[in-house]
Amino acid sequence: MVIDRLKQLTMQLTKSSPAPHPFDPLSSLEIETAVSVIRKEKGQLFYNAVTLYEPLKAEMLSWLADPEKAPKPKRIADVVAIAKGGQVYDGLVDLADQKITKWEALKGVQPLITMEDLQIVEHVVRKDPKVIEQCGIVGIPPEEMDKVYCDPWTIGYDERFGSTVRLQQALMYYRPNVDDSQYTFPLDFCPIFDADKQEIIHIDIPEVRRPLSKAAPNNYHVADIDKELGYRTDIKPINITQPEGVSFKVNGRTIEWQNWSVHVGFNYREGIVLNNISFYDKFEKAVRPIFYRLSLAEMVVPYGNPEHPHQRKHAFDLGEYGGGYMTNSLALGCDCKGAIHYMDADFVNRAGSVQTIKNAICIHEEDAGILFKHTDFRDDSTIVTRARKLIISHIFTAANYEYCVYWIFHQDGTVQLEIKLTGILNTYAMNPGEDTKGWGTEVYPGVNAHNHQHLFCLRIDPNIDGPNNTVFQVDAARGSGEVGSAENKYGNAFYAKKTKFTTPKGAISDYNGSTSRTWEMCNEGKLNPYSKKPVSYKLVSREVPDLLPKEGGLVWKRAGFARHAVHVTKYSDSELHPAGRHVPQTSGEPSMGLPQWIESTATDNIANSDVVLWHTFGITHFPSPEDYPVMPAEPMTLLLRPRNFFIKNPCLDVPPSFARAPSQVLLGKTNGASACCAPSTGKKEGDSVLV
Amino acid sequence: MVIDRLKQLTMQLTKSSPAPHPFDPLSSLEIETAVSVIRKEKGQLFYNAVTLYEPLKAEMLSWLADPEKAPKPKRIADVVAIAKGGQVYDGLVDLADQKITKWEALKGVQPLITMEDLQIVEHVVRKDPKVIEQCGIVGIPPEEMDKVYCDPWTIGYDERFGSTVRLQQALMYYRPNVDDSQYTFPLDFCPIFDADKQEIIHIDIPEVRRPLSKAAPNNYHVADIDKELGYRTDIKPINITQPEGVSFKVNGRTIEWQNWSVHVGFNYREGIVLNNISFYDKFEKAVRPIFYRLSLAEMVVPYGNPEHPHQRKHAFDLGEYGGGYMTNSLALGCDCKGAIHYMDADFVNRAGSVQTIKNAICIHEEDAGILFKHTDFRDDSTIVTRARKLIISHIFTAANYEYCVYWIFHQDGTVQLEIKLTGILNTYAMNPGEDTKGWGTEVYPGVNAHNHQHLFCLRIDPNIDGPNNTVFQVDAARGSGEVGSAENKYGNAFYAKKTKFTTPKGAISDYNGSTSRTWEMCNEGKLNPYSKKPVSYKLVSREVPDLLPKEGGLVWKRAGFARHAVHVTKYSDSELHPAGRHVPQTSGEPSMGLPQWIESTATDNIANSDVVLWHTFGITHFPSPEDYPVMPAEPMTLLLRPRNFFIKNPCLDVPPSFARAPSQVLLGKTNGASACCAPSTGKKEGDSVLV
Repeated sequence: MVIDRLKQLTMQLTKSSPAPHPFDPLSSLEIETAVSVIRKEKGQLFYNAVTLYEPLKAEMLSWLADPEKAPKPKRIADVVAIAKGGQVYDGLVDLADQKITKWEALKGVQPLITMEDLQIVEHVVRKDPKVIEQCGIVGIPPEEMDKVYCDPWTIGYDERFGSTVRLQQALMYYRPNVDDSQYTFPLDFCPIFDADKQEIIHIDIPEVRRPLSKAAPNNYHVADIDKELGYRTDIKPINITQPEGVSFKVNGRTIEWQNWSVHVGFNYREGIVLNNISFYDKFEKAVRPIFYRLSLAEMVVPYGNPEHPHQRKHAFDLGEYGGGYMTNSLALGCDCKGAIHYMDADFVNRAGSVQTIKNAICIHEEDAGILFKHTDFRDDSTIVTRARKLIISHIFTAANYEYCVYWIFHQDGTVQLEIKLTGILNTYAMNPGEDTKGWGTEVYPGVNAHNHQHLFCLRIDPNIDGPNNTVFQVDAARGSGEVGSAENKYGNAFYAKKTKFTTPKGAISDYNGSTSRTWEMCNEGKLNPYSKKPVSYKLVSREVPDLLPKEGGLVWKRAGFARHAVHVTKYSDSELHPAGRHVPQTSGEPSMGLPQWIESTATDNIANSDVVLWHTFGITHFPSPEDYPVMPAEPMTLLLRPRNFFIKNPCLDVPPSFARAPSQVLLGKTNGASACCAPSTGKKEGDSVLV
Repeated sequence: MVIDRLKQLTMQLTKSSPAPHPFDPLSSLEIETAVSVIRKEKGQLFYNAVTLYEPLKAEMLSWLADPEKAPKPKRIADVVAIAKGGQVYDGLVDLADQKITKWEALKGVQPLITMEDLQIVEHVVRKDPKVIEQCGIVGIPPEEMDKVYCDPWTIGYDERFGSTVRLQQALMYYRPNVDDSQYTFPLDFCPIFDADKQEIIHIDIPEVRRPLSKAAPNNYHVADIDKELGYRTDIKPINITQPEGVSFKVNGRTIEWQNWSVHVGFNYREGIVLNNISFYDKFEKAVRPIFYRLSLAEMVVPYGNPEHPHQRKHAFDLGEYGGGYMTNSLALGCDCKGAIHYMDADFVNRAGSVQTIKNAICIHEEDAGILFKHTDFRDDSTIVTRARKLIISHIFTAANYEYCVYWIFHQDGTVQLEIKLTGILNTYAMNPGEDTKGWGTEVYPGVNAHNHQHLFCLRIDPNIDGPNNTVFQVDAARGSGEVGSAENKYGNAFYAKKTKFTTPKGAISDYNGSTSRTWEMCNEGKLNPYSKKPVSYKLVSREVPDLLPKEGGLVWKRAGFARHAVHVTKYSDSELHPAGRHVPQTSGEPSMGLPQWIESTATDNIANSDVVLWHTFGITHFPSPEDYPVMPAEPMTLLLRPRNFFIKNPCLDVPPSFARAPSQVLLGKTNGASACCAPSTGKKEGDSVLV
């Protein structure tokens, strides 16, 4: 049976047209093929991930340079599976040859927790006698166990249990009624779940008990708000339509828009992956590569309450759960306006079947206000041009929180990453009058929302006119002469101080707000013909808090990437995950991922070579009641801007919405026409209105 | 004649209906009245400003508290006039009584340069023999003087000429053809213009001469771009319409929108002034005051080239020219989409007549993406609500640059200030192969764009549930225990460290990016009932570079407000202008405005009192060729966010675009309906779709 299915799959894969682009995520057929190949040889397993093993960069660059003649990189599946008993395997499957090319049994390693892994815990918790006992202690009778809920989290790392047993911690809640928000009724104890045995092996119970809150629910669903507050009736519609359709073209998963070209990938872990980003430069009449790959590679959300066991709350939402796996289907309430192009996402499930998230990725355009404007004060000659942006987005739900990730392309060559945080605060129980000691805020009676940070790691693989790039740190700096000196008499001298990063160790750098610090990725082999400076893209990021957990502490050890704002490494095909490939239950001894890579290459040359820039950014969140019971979206953003990359403004040729040159003003005056006229109020001879 | 006109004006003013709100800018009738009163008594003068003398706060608060019984503040005109010979007068005119209540002759003081003052210079320059001679030296024949242009700037301060003679410096350019951008052809010398004599009194000539560039023009007007590049034809329209009109109400100049109420003022200097900002709190069922007044009060743009006379390039665009005076008429190309409400602006001109900028202020709504969203991972119960924002904006042109100022109100209680910089770089001549020495960038052959900063001073007069407020500095800080200690075993403790500002001297503070520093304006007399923390608004601002000109230098002395990110002063009716009332040609000895006020009240108590927070923010700009010949808009933003102000998310009652409670999911399952359905693809029973 298995063999027959494999034969069928071979035929289907061979026939599938068009053939997948080497950057494409595995199709459902490919996932099924990988599972069938493994099943045939290894028998029954639980599948944790079957994802694209990304093409080796050297092979891929050859193929991209000459797709007709160079060999096309093979399609390979990267597999993580778990056997009954908990043995974890890393494997690779050559899909065309239907061969397992790597199969490695791992020790003391836990792959991420899938949505299915999470779903199981609540059912087990409700039936566990010790949990039922604890519920009784805080005031929930046994017959109400169906009102008990839990958000299962990875355990992070707990030294009492180590890494060999696959564990989750269950953050406990109660719902008086099915539509009430459970986050208003947190319970004070924390069961530990063994994923292999599917049972509760321990419960962490605080010394001071906190009985179930007697407060009224604090809800956000429609019926309650309607009753409590009534909905607003004074918001008039804003209609956003694109009667002629979108301005972008979709070829497979490659999007062409306003000189940009970008391949949109997606995986279970990082969510959206953008590859082979290039820009058609009208001045050079050439397609110019900019980034080989962009993704959110990792994140960590440390909580600031030192009381046991809250130190375990520091989710690595990408490495421990998967930003792809947790992605919302936008079929459940589309979150964008205008003409939308969606892409689905296919994943393996625990049993080895394919599951599809419908409308996982949203691609759409938005108006973006003024692109540029100038008025000459002499004669009111004017040009004003409106901007458009292309947004490639997905939204994922990490238990209580929502992360909305927007990759935004601008007509001026800027790539922007915007993240909006929304959803619900993680909450813990507190007694009336209890002192939060500054580690949290009472956002509602009996609800303690702990301080936390959201720290994201952006992985930038630059390809600025080719793979050999150099990273510079740029600080605004005062000129050297003292006030009154010949060289700086009035003290106004300042310049961009550039520090060249030549080794991974030397490239470890922190943010400096007062010098407006940025980092430039340059191609030193190509100078801008006007400025004589290297063509470059600049990282402009202003939300860059320090990692607050202390040096040597648990989070500091496990989230090595978050210790500094910027790290730079030499490109390696195997270095994708800055906190390690398998993140749950890592002790941080040694720190996995980035710290290891940097230590092993500390003094290697990284100037004018194929480099990767890792940037940690985010926010520190001290909750307040207005964040509750559901949080208004809090945005943060960063820019990747062309500097000395183009010879002039690359969006000069975007048609203006209004323009009038001095000669046209003169003509208007000669004709006795009014100097003032807007397209909407009547066009006068001599005015140019292109859009 | 004058007396007759005054009688007429009296009648018209008395009849004008509705009577002006005390915060309203002077009407054209009121401006004419003020001028008539002065003309009657003082004869002919040149008018520099006739603007609202803002009501004294104590009187205004009484009236706002009880408009029926309390006396309404009088309408008073604040007048700056200049007599032939250069004598400057500050005056006040009581409009109802038609009386001059103050008339002060000032010494060694220069009021700002108006647009008319600027326009004169170019004509004088073109005819000046010494300028014609210098033009000849750089390669412009006398018959081409009509192709010579200048951007007249205030002189800043030049110790050779002092403050008693009213001066401008003329930054010189050349246009080969009338539609060419002159900024591509800067000239190397700088004439000094005497505004009283209307003649050139000096020319600054560099030691190394830089003949006129032979480069081809680098233009942005339509005909050239059409010829050179051709316009894009692949941008499909996005239509944004509000078929039922806007969601805000306009009552005089008071805007009511989504629980917000704000009075929109405007003056020649700051441009938009927002007063009496309040929010209807549905939980408290009360209108709650938040800000008494918000404005951009000053700015400075220091340039970083120390070579003489570039140190003089450090325009105070508000205090030296006026953000109101330079405001674009949006009748010349409207810059917003959707249903727009405009307001005009009336000003006095040099001769004492009224001039109107049509459509000076734009008020409109925009869709603002996701307001909040949450999906429960258990059952895909979901709520997603779209946001709307209200934008009150104006755009002003300061010679080469455009500043687009957007005051944005959000439904969640946030006030956002966004500024977009666009327009054209200030440029200076350079010889082929000349070393810019790092003080600028060759953005085009022969064009040196100097480094510069744009530093804005936001004046916040908080009124957080009343005028008595306290400012705290808030830093994210690590908990005190070492890793391994009982109190902080895992090192993860962190908290919001609050520093209370009790004196103006102690409140002088700089930005700290690594601690995510913010500043909170609190009412210590009112605690949030849940969090027990004072109700407050938090200033979140991340673009806060150091002032780069050095301590003791010219800019440092003149722009005292820009030395630090935050200053706090006790409210005083007379303290509106942080670099002084009359800014041009101040020497900075002593530093006017904020440094004086702080020195004189250094140790006065400012806790729990009526305070003003002055915040300097902005960007440092190292130009590059893509900023030229016209710059794609560069945005910067800051937020004023409610913290512990509301008892919960104040926009819970905004109708969701899609919502489905757990009970509805259950119902759907019971009925056998699909779990997935979006409003656009067909509504299923049990789904709530309100918008």
